Amino acid sequence: MPRYKAPVEDVLFLLNDVFNMHRYDNLPGFSDASADVVEAILREGARFCEEVLTPLNRSGDQEGCRRDSDGRVTTPGGFKDAYGQLKEGGWIGISVPEAFGGQGLPFVITQAVNEFLASANMAFAMYPALTQGAIAALLVHGTPEHQVRFLPKMTAGEWTGTMNLTEPQCGTDLGLIRTRALRQDDGSFKLTGTKIFISAGEHDLAENIIHLVLARVEGAPAGIKGLSLFVVPKMSVGADGSLGARNGVTCGSIEHKMGIHGNATCVINFDDASGWLVGAENRGLNTMFTMMNEARLGVGVQGLALSEVAYQNAAAYANDRLQGRAISGVKFKDKPADPLIVHPDVRRMLMTIRAFNEAGRALVLWTALKEDIARHSGDSKERQAADDHMGLMTPVIKGVLTDQGFANTVMAQQIFGGHGYISEHGMEQFVRDARIPMIYEGANGIQALDLVGRKLAKDGGRAVSAFFAEVQACVKQHSSDPAMRPIVEPLGGSLAHLQQATMWFAANALAKPDNAGAGANDYMHLFGLVALGYMWALMNAAAIARLAADANDARMTSKPALARFFAEHILPQTATHLARIKAGAASMMELPAEAF
Amino acid sequence: MPRYKAPVEDVLFLLNDVFNMHRYDNLPGFSDASADVVEAILREGARFCEEVLTPLNRSGDQEGCRRDSDGRVTTPGGFKDAYGQLKEGGWIGISVPEAFGGQGLPFVITQAVNEFLASANMAFAMYPALTQGAIAALLVHGTPEHQVRFLPKMTAGEWTGTMNLTEPQCGTDLGLIRTRALRQDDGSFKLTGTKIFISAGEHDLAENIIHLVLARVEGAPAGIKGLSLFVVPKMSVGADGSLGARNGVTCGSIEHKMGIHGNATCVINFDDASGWLVGAENRGLNTMFTMMNEARLGVGVQGLALSEVAYQNAAAYANDRLQGRAISGVKFKDKPADPLIVHPDVRRMLMTIRAFNEAGRALVLWTALKEDIARHSGDSKERQAADDHMGLMTPVIKGVLTDQGFANTVMAQQIFGGHGYISEHGMEQFVRDARIPMIYEGANGIQALDLVGRKLAKDGGRAVSAFFAEVQACVKQHSSDPAMRPIVEPLGGSLAHLQQATMWFAANALAKPDNAGAGANDYMHLFGLVALGYMWALMNAAAIARLAADANDARMTSKPALARFFAEHILPQTATHLARIKAGAASMMELPAEAF
Repeated sequence: MPRYKAPVEDVLFLLNDVFNMHRYDNLPGFSDASADVVEAILREGARFCEEVLTPLNRSGDQEGCRRDSDGRVTTPGGFKDAYGQLKEGGWIGISVPEAFGGQGLPFVITQAVNEFLASANMAFAMYPALTQGAIAALLVHGTPEHQVRFLPKMTAGEWTGTMNLTEPQCGTDLGLIRTRALRQDDGSFKLTGTKIFISAGEHDLAENIIHLVLARVEGAPAGIKGLSLFVVPKMSVGADGSLGARNGVTCGSIEHKMGIHGNATCVINFDDASGWLVGAENRGLNTMFTMMNEARLGVGVQGLALSEVAYQNAAAYANDRLQGRAISGVKFKDKPADPLIVHPDVRRMLMTIRAFNEAGRALVLWTALKEDIARHSGDSKERQAADDHMGLMTPVIKGVLTDQGFANTVMAQQIFGGHGYISEHGMEQFVRDARIPMIYEGANGIQALDLVGRKLAKDGGRAVSAFFAEVQACVKQHSSDPAMRPIVEPLGGSLAHLQQATMWFAANALAKPDNAGAGANDYMHLFGLVALGYMWALMNAAAIARLAADANDARMTSKPALARFFAEHILPQTATHLARIKAGAASMMELPAEAF
Repeated sequence: MPRYKAPVEDVLFLLNDVFNMHRYDNLPGFSDASADVVEAILREGARFCEEVLTPLNRSGDQEGCRRDSDGRVTTPGGFKDAYGQLKEGGWIGISVPEAFGGQGLPFVITQAVNEFLASANMAFAMYPALTQGAIAALLVHGTPEHQVRFLPKMTAGEWTGTMNLTEPQCGTDLGLIRTRALRQDDGSFKLTGTKIFISAGEHDLAENIIHLVLARVEGAPAGIKGLSLFVVPKMSVGADGSLGARNGVTCGSIEHKMGIHGNATCVINFDDASGWLVGAENRGLNTMFTMMNEARLGVGVQGLALSEVAYQNAAAYANDRLQGRAISGVKFKDKPADPLIVHPDVRRMLMTIRAFNEAGRALVLWTALKEDIARHSGDSKERQAADDHMGLMTPVIKGVLTDQGFANTVMAQQIFGGHGYISEHGMEQFVRDARIPMIYEGANGIQALDLVGRKLAKDGGRAVSAFFAEVQACVKQHSSDPAMRPIVEPLGGSLAHLQQATMWFAANALAKPDNAGAGANDYMHLFGLVALGYMWALMNAAAIARLAADANDARMTSKPALARFFAEHILPQTATHLARIKAGAASMMELPAEAF
């Protein structure tokens, strides 16, 4: 049975020491989030995840979801009871305004807890995560009437939410969507069409499901400019929030898939289903995009979350399992063999994962904090800068944290040897579950294109310039400090690689856009390494400050070693990414399509 | 349903044009392997794999193996019939001496066909592959009597073979083996103990299973120096080869695992089972090692095989699936969208996999040819050089081809987007199946240690010096040829990185062995990149020669683009590997074990 302990101390270190979130105590929500309150929430969330959700992870994978012939879907044993506890704990609405029944606390707290949830049981955590996504869309674009009708029940977890985009003929290319919406006299619409890959599309956890659906109003233009977003409840909802008749929404089948077996991935058939516009007609894609940053950040967190729980299990196994003798000489003469952790190659894998996890968590919380600032700051420049950051860092977090998160689950599995390949220890489930975040919510190739094709040049490169300047300032500030130099010196080198790559695109991608496409994936990862390296610089500085107060703080003594490992063993990759980017598209695009 | 077409033309190009295998026609076996015979064998093997085994791959995964309460194991539907055809075709004994019923053909042919088998159906292919491994052990170490008793039936596929090493408390560390062997008056032994993770350990395909078992003769020294190898048939075998009573060998359970569901991974209980020594007493590990090169080469081939079949399906999907428009401008105005193959990031993935597959296949066949030379050459120097090559390249092929093969299946799956995550297209099965070759037959961390700790310094570095000299000579020979420079110039740079890394170990690993352990994985991959780059140099040269004869040879025109892609987009990784190696073990080993 896999184990999990939520990294509460690490989150507190990041929020309090590294990012000093309490300097924003003047912002709405933050004043209620005192250090004590935050710690209490995190500890209670940790307990729920460790004690309730973790034990259901493997059984949920083995049992999976079941669809009856009438279209009803049953979740794995224990999910319903756990979902009841999730509702009671108010975990869905941590950051939903109090007006709709939430706690109105900072978004950064939600993200911290969402990591715990996904580590403990990703398939389960997707039910509330999709609800949060739908809430976010309705908060920004729903009519006041819809907000009153839907949000309190969704915040309370009485109803869940979904996102209906994909159709058989279109995944990435939403312009191909065919689901159509017929305007009714009362201003509502009747939707007809088939959506696929709908996570949490049907289940037995809640009495209603609020579907957000991209569709095309009859007569709308072709392509993405003819898409509108609709809210389509599974059960009709009266103005007072009471449940009415069944709407024309049914689950046609559930997918057999590689992982996340506890989450029902549905074909959803809309058959003259009543729906209402969310946001402006034919502006559905823009409406979607305003919630995309949050959703993509959330998927990035899934990559981190699985990497974290896989690490914890691999580290425990490496300390327990006796196998072989240390290359530097026997360590435990009285035992039949030394534990795996004595072997440098096992350390290499553990350090790689751990150095990534701690920096990835920092990047997530830093960015979530920016979202809070972008929402609530009274200073328009600060709001803009925070919004710039969100836009820039979202594809990086989604792409890099899920790519590397998956790779890390594979590495953690490797430490178990053959025992990692069988189901018993749960390691192979982490790998299977971690595979999907690289694909959904915009496949990682799309994230890379979003970064290179849209975010870099946006507003004259304002966002990227600000990020470069911030990292550069950190490198400069600490360059003569012997305790910081091991991380900031390599970071400066990697930042230079990133800047060179940025300039190379500026010089070579306008005339030949294939050069941007060819280098986008490498650029995204190069960007991610610099961002993670910057997080290590900040964490190293904060740890040094804490060690100055208490030299025996065991948790802090590990930070400089991890920072140095990241600088020495991970950052060298930036040179390779730069070289590949500069190689351009020529050899990549030379062969005719039929040669493949 | 996934598709597969065996790469017969590519194998012929490698055997005939790149490695000119017919220059060895004076060696035993080669004289019978005329170009026509080789081609006929490959085409018939391709047909069997494409028509018989490929259709059983997905159903075999879904159905899996079933163990009845009496310990009998049933393979998935269709496997038994397909196995019958495998036997009839004589596919197990291609390279087994004619004296034992084989065809006595070169080992390189067996490896070429084994790739086809594993691409088509890896779980199925493991049954004959394990038989081939057991045959190889008995050919070298079996007594003449055992050879007569066991080999003809195994070669014919009437009986299959297994390898019993792992026990619950020991995987990598075979010194911990507890299974014991009690000497009997007639010279035989009674074996008692429990083995786990035994592939093909029990099944319904053959009437007998010949287990090779590592165990400890009572009174033998502790550790690896007290291990002996035994042959333990499931059913007793009379001197005339007739089947007798059931031996004390039973399947206790079969594992639930991530993939290769069609192959039964068994717990095998030995309970006073009659067995006979293979090789010298207490020399079991050495006996095993003589067949280890072949077995590890075979596992490397599995990585390549899954990468190949995943590539073929991804390439077909990329040509079929319409999604998005080319960044360089619309390519198919009359279609609702362009096919995926127009997107540079999709090309990047396809080219990465393809450039690896073609070079990986070359590396395998080159090395298999060396095995033929090592076995059969009349020139002792040539034999020694070939044997050096096998020893050096085996861990590289096993480690690099399985690590990268797995990564390639993940990349191919990514091209399918959400459709790659569901079972329907079979892509997620390739990923699950491709995961195990990284683990079994010596986890890849062990391969890296074998390379760095044993193979580099062996015989004063004779093998590695010869390899470096050969690559260097190729770089030098072609350095002024404009058609070769794009590959040999970067190859020369990467070779320099490899040489620097080798010297760094020489200078830094003796005093501090952790430095060798810390850099071993990077060194193995650096070595692999140079070896694969060298293959591209050879293939490019051979393609240029063929194009000089026929400029329109479409298959040949793709080679220079692939070679250049490999040089520009893959070889830059060698700089990163070198930098990591030189960073050494310090930051990796600094933290105390309890900090993990």
